[in-house]
Amino acid sequence: MNKIYNPERKDWEAVLKRPTQEVDQIEGIVNQIFKEIKTNGDEVIKKYTQQFDGVALENNKVTELELEEGINLVSEELKNAILQAKSNIEVFHKAQRTSKIEVETTEGVACWQEKRPIQKVGLYIPGGTAPLFSTILMLAVPAAIAGCKEVVLCTPPNKEGKINPAILYTASLCGVTQIFKVGGIQAIAGMTFGTETLPKVYKIFGPGNQYVTVAKQIATKFGVAIDMPAGPSELLVMADDSANAAFVASDLLSQAEHGVDSQVILVSTSKQLIESVEKEVETQIEVLPRKEIAIQAIANSKLIFVEEEQTAIDLINEYGPEHYILCVENEAFFLENTFNAGSVFIGNYTPESAGDYASGTNHTLPTNGYAKQYSGVNLDSFMKSMTFQKISDKGIQAIGRTIEVMAEAEGLLAHKNAVTLRLKSLKNN
Amino acid sequence: MNKIYNPERKDWEAVLKRPTQEVDQIEGIVNQIFKEIKTNGDEVIKKYTQQFDGVALENNKVTELELEEGINLVSEELKNAILQAKSNIEVFHKAQRTSKIEVETTEGVACWQEKRPIQKVGLYIPGGTAPLFSTILMLAVPAAIAGCKEVVLCTPPNKEGKINPAILYTASLCGVTQIFKVGGIQAIAGMTFGTETLPKVYKIFGPGNQYVTVAKQIATKFGVAIDMPAGPSELLVMADDSANAAFVASDLLSQAEHGVDSQVILVSTSKQLIESVEKEVETQIEVLPRKEIAIQAIANSKLIFVEEEQTAIDLINEYGPEHYILCVENEAFFLENTFNAGSVFIGNYTPESAGDYASGTNHTLPTNGYAKQYSGVNLDSFMKSMTFQKISDKGIQAIGRTIEVMAEAEGLLAHKNAVTLRLKSLKNN
Repeated sequence: MNKIYNPERKDWEAVLKRPTQEVDQIEGIVNQIFKEIKTNGDEVIKKYTQQFDGVALENNKVTELELEEGINLVSEELKNAILQAKSNIEVFHKAQRTSKIEVETTEGVACWQEKRPIQKVGLYIPGGTAPLFSTILMLAVPAAIAGCKEVVLCTPPNKEGKINPAILYTASLCGVTQIFKVGGIQAIAGMTFGTETLPKVYKIFGPGNQYVTVAKQIATKFGVAIDMPAGPSELLVMADDSANAAFVASDLLSQAEHGVDSQVILVSTSKQLIESVEKEVETQIEVLPRKEIAIQAIANSKLIFVEEEQTAIDLINEYGPEHYILCVENEAFFLENTFNAGSVFIGNYTPESAGDYASGTNHTLPTNGYAKQYSGVNLDSFMKSMTFQKISDKGIQAIGRTIEVMAEAEGLLAHKNAVTLRLKSLKNN
Repeated sequence: MNKIYNPERKDWEAVLKRPTQEVDQIEGIVNQIFKEIKTNGDEVIKKYTQQFDGVALENNKVTELELEEGINLVSEELKNAILQAKSNIEVFHKAQRTSKIEVETTEGVACWQEKRPIQKVGLYIPGGTAPLFSTILMLAVPAAIAGCKEVVLCTPPNKEGKINPAILYTASLCGVTQIFKVGGIQAIAGMTFGTETLPKVYKIFGPGNQYVTVAKQIATKFGVAIDMPAGPSELLVMADDSANAAFVASDLLSQAEHGVDSQVILVSTSKQLIESVEKEVETQIEVLPRKEIAIQAIANSKLIFVEEEQTAIDLINEYGPEHYILCVENEAFFLENTFNAGSVFIGNYTPESAGDYASGTNHTLPTNGYAKQYSGVNLDSFMKSMTFQKISDKGIQAIGRTIEVMAEAEGLLAHKNAVTLRLKSLKNN
């Protein structure tokens, strides 16, 4: 772990630098697969499923029978856990529903805003070592609350052509309308263009490796929206002497086990705490099954000591962490002045893993400093707001002249004329 | 105008096709300028301002004196019009403020969502024939309501190195913090990287030509967000015999004058109305100053007759118009069933130009079918939502087992351990 004491402001950029990702090479592969799938659809998907996932599939789509078989394989204990998590996520995301906003801006000029669901959304769930069924909860639950009509899920099959049962169970529980055994770049391209079996969607959500991330970026060139740009997961803990060093260490490690490129930062106004956390990390890391990954991530981690709380806040806002644990006495000060963070975990009994699974907040959050300008996934991510206006004869008489003057000043005379015609017709009546 | 009667569903895609934009060539130029500005900042901006805008500027930044001089040049009539428009836009966007959403998802598990302003935003306002001061109202007013700290505006200077007075007046009125005489690609690149004079911003808003549009896309590769991808402006009018043909024609023309690539579509269940509108367009177009542009856009426009209102709705949802005028008897049916549109203008006295300037709704709207998945600019475009959770000892005991079970099933044992440690410490107490 790298200990940094009182870094000067001019060095913050270097201290807080995230690892740069080289995507230029990946872009070539992604563009190639997009091109092929646009032209030859399912045939190409089949080819790449064989190449990347090592299985030749007759059929992309998960059948009712497969779904049933999968669901039966999930233990009751896991089902109950998923149900409790779903319930909390539902409660929090239902609370985010907004009602129609309606105002009369001028007498006779009614304006309103309504949110309507995005009709077709696609969810990508990675395969590999960790079957991220929790991400299905985070995406399919708000999609259902929003009222999205089609919720398509793509996830890569294993070498036997199967999907992890917990993924099937969760997808079925949360109202996913179709599940496809398609992974990686080919899944993103398939949902972008549509194929014989895969529907074309309007917005794609979900995490993935660098190939998926680049594929999602490329997809936006073809008229599809994405949840947000993604980078490696990251955690910043702000802690003082009121924090429990063992708890803080366990949180840093839970972030570190995600991947060797995970970002882990501790900021503290207590040198004592920094020392204790470091020792705890050394002890706890020994027993982790994903120890090899954690060791590499921890080696790049940073323990930053600053004298002043205001300095800490400035540094945190400069970084804009995805996950932000706050264990400090002066809690209100930090909460009020943190402008840039994805999700905030407050106090000694709020580990990041609570938000990852079951507190109710969404775990799809802006990484890579994007907390400065992006929201994490929330109910609104599955909707778009539309505006409406209805102007009466009185209303157009009240604002008509203003429109005429402004349109003329912008040199747009047909814009002006659309009003002039209406005003004249009212005068003649 | 192209009249199409009862197009078959299989032909809709072709009928509704928007002109494709060739951007590959532009990308090379944009990438080059980005690279230069990243390395050499203001020096390069100066070079391109001379090359593209034909003026050598000593100083990028608009001074207090220039601002004052500009403001004095704006007529009282225009100032008053801008003030009325601003007031309506303010009323509508202030109504969009949301309060903190707070729920206890499980006893002891408090979750909340708060929106916080994006600290630094950049507005791009094109120069050229039409000084779009109205767009400043649409962007700077919600930025101020959101509470953005820095609101930077870039707009190209004319050959005398000056900015249109109405732009200066409106920017000053709406709380823009700094105005720069920088246009096109160099403005977008400058706000992306920051230069000696231009601040780096987190999100860039505003319209522009193809160069600006591509530059905004490229900017997203460097960690900046943008309001939305942009294409040529478009209008779809749905009208039946209850509509006034002259008014409809004037609306189609106000869209057509924007540019030769503007999209203009009329859908109707009345052949009679289609004929009348066509005649009206021919008459009204003659007197427009931007007639040459309008003629070309109108030549590509489509008048589509369909028998059934349900067919009309399906077609409109398939298109997803940016601007959508609705002049029909069966208004409620159309309002309820339109899922994809940017902004809706209802009834005979609600021309599109009302929303362009002064009704109060925002005129920065999704084009190119993006109404299917993007909102128009609104108050939330200048904020991001952050989530918070605070779990008590009771709370972690209530959901701790669920987190452990789920983390273990995903193979993330350090995630599990962060909870186990806390549960143990509570048992030991």
